[in-house]
Amino acid sequence: MLSQKWTKLIKSLQVKKYRKLEQSFVTEGGKSVLELIQSDYKVTIVLVTARFKDENSEILRSKNFAVEIVSEEDLEKLGSFQSNNAALAVAEMKSNHILIPQSNEILLALDGIQDPGNLGTIIRIADWYGIKKLICSEDTVDFYNPKTISATMGSFTRTQLYYCNLIDYLEKYKADVVSYGAFLEGESVYQTHFTSSGIIVMGNEAHGIRPELESVIEKQISIPRFGSAESLNVAIATAIICDNWRRSLHRT
Amino acid sequence: MLSQKWTKLIKSLQVKKYRKLEQSFVTEGGKSVLELIQSDYKVTIVLVTARFKDENSEILRSKNFAVEIVSEEDLEKLGSFQSNNAALAVAEMKSNHILIPQSNEILLALDGIQDPGNLGTIIRIADWYGIKKLICSEDTVDFYNPKTISATMGSFTRTQLYYCNLIDYLEKYKADVVSYGAFLEGESVYQTHFTSSGIIVMGNEAHGIRPELESVIEKQISIPRFGSAESLNVAIATAIICDNWRRSLHRT
Repeated sequence: MLSQKWTKLIKSLQVKKYRKLEQSFVTEGGKSVLELIQSDYKVTIVLVTARFKDENSEILRSKNFAVEIVSEEDLEKLGSFQSNNAALAVAEMKSNHILIPQSNEILLALDGIQDPGNLGTIIRIADWYGIKKLICSEDTVDFYNPKTISATMGSFTRTQLYYCNLIDYLEKYKADVVSYGAFLEGESVYQTHFTSSGIIVMGNEAHGIRPELESVIEKQISIPRFGSAESLNVAIATAIICDNWRRSLHRT
Repeated sequence: MLSQKWTKLIKSLQVKKYRKLEQSFVTEGGKSVLELIQSDYKVTIVLVTARFKDENSEILRSKNFAVEIVSEEDLEKLGSFQSNNAALAVAEMKSNHILIPQSNEILLALDGIQDPGNLGTIIRIADWYGIKKLICSEDTVDFYNPKTISATMGSFTRTQLYYCNLIDYLEKYKADVVSYGAFLEGESVYQTHFTSSGIIVMGNEAHGIRPELESVIEKQISIPRFGSAESLNVAIATAIICDNWRRSLHRT
């Protein structure tokens, strides 16, 4: 049986304050836990059902962490998933290191994304398009929120995030890389000549990119609209812009 | 105060069985309700807060339906939204009429989409790209699910859906329009020469397009991947394919 100590810790990690205090976070679901174990995260404990342990015994022995067998009911009670018949893990958070744009690299910058599901979906999209670095404004939702981790479908293990003052960051690298910001009235992404190094800036769900950022963004871009919907969800817009960036380079 | 009759009806419309029985559905939130009133849907009753009524008195008087003033608490108790400080409406469902592909028109076909939020987001994307007709397999989630209606952000009023046997439908129009199906191993959408008339087929969240459909789909297409994520969410994939379709026609 799982000790009270672990039960209490895992429950507390649903809350940002305690994640910060413990410098730890929770990953739920079989696929995500397997990706976590095989990543460079330092895993503390993995809770598994007996069946999941049997099926993945080799990976579970591959590194130095505690493994405890629990029931499906325990997994569901401990985590935020409605159903989890596989695994849950606790790992150490990474520290907030600066991420520097390299040549031939595109970074994503997020200005005040509030919804944990949107952030997770954006991380999954970044991973699809080969973007490894995300620069987040300080008021962007926490990367280690269980809903964010879950929505990444394992892509969080391949993506680095850096939380900072986005204005200062963009100002700092203005001379080195082109920044493209998603606005309602920018140049069509069908016409944009994307460079192979750059930063794509996406704004808050309701308010877009904050006005203070406009002066440090080099190019304002937009997704052409052909029908009547007023807007697109920010994760959808991120995917379309990343796709146009890759397609534009692909053509040349 | 709202009568027991309405309270009971509105609550029951959360469930598909009762929506079918009553041939009615619920729309929540100020923006969606205003779009509903201005659409060709037949509205039965609109519940509004006193403030929302004051702000929208003209639109609320524009057609022949009952208007009842309720509190925010009542709206939240009656609906599925966590917070709703504006409006909720009941309207009549439309009947399931066949939708025929016209020339210079792209339709979306959905094969077994299960998540109501995904369906709603796809409808919003369709509306952005000017797609007005969606053909859904019989096992696709119900269009009138409150979560679907809500995720469309009002776009449900501009989009028609037809539920049918998708194999028969695609077979029937095979000679008239090109069908494009989203597969993992198809031709890159960057290379696809999209025609101005056609049907884009998207598959189920976990299993993709069912094998029985493959023989009636003319072209298998894929979104190029540059990183390591295993897959993209189906709404994200729909958006990227619609964007590539529009961009491809735009260029020629």
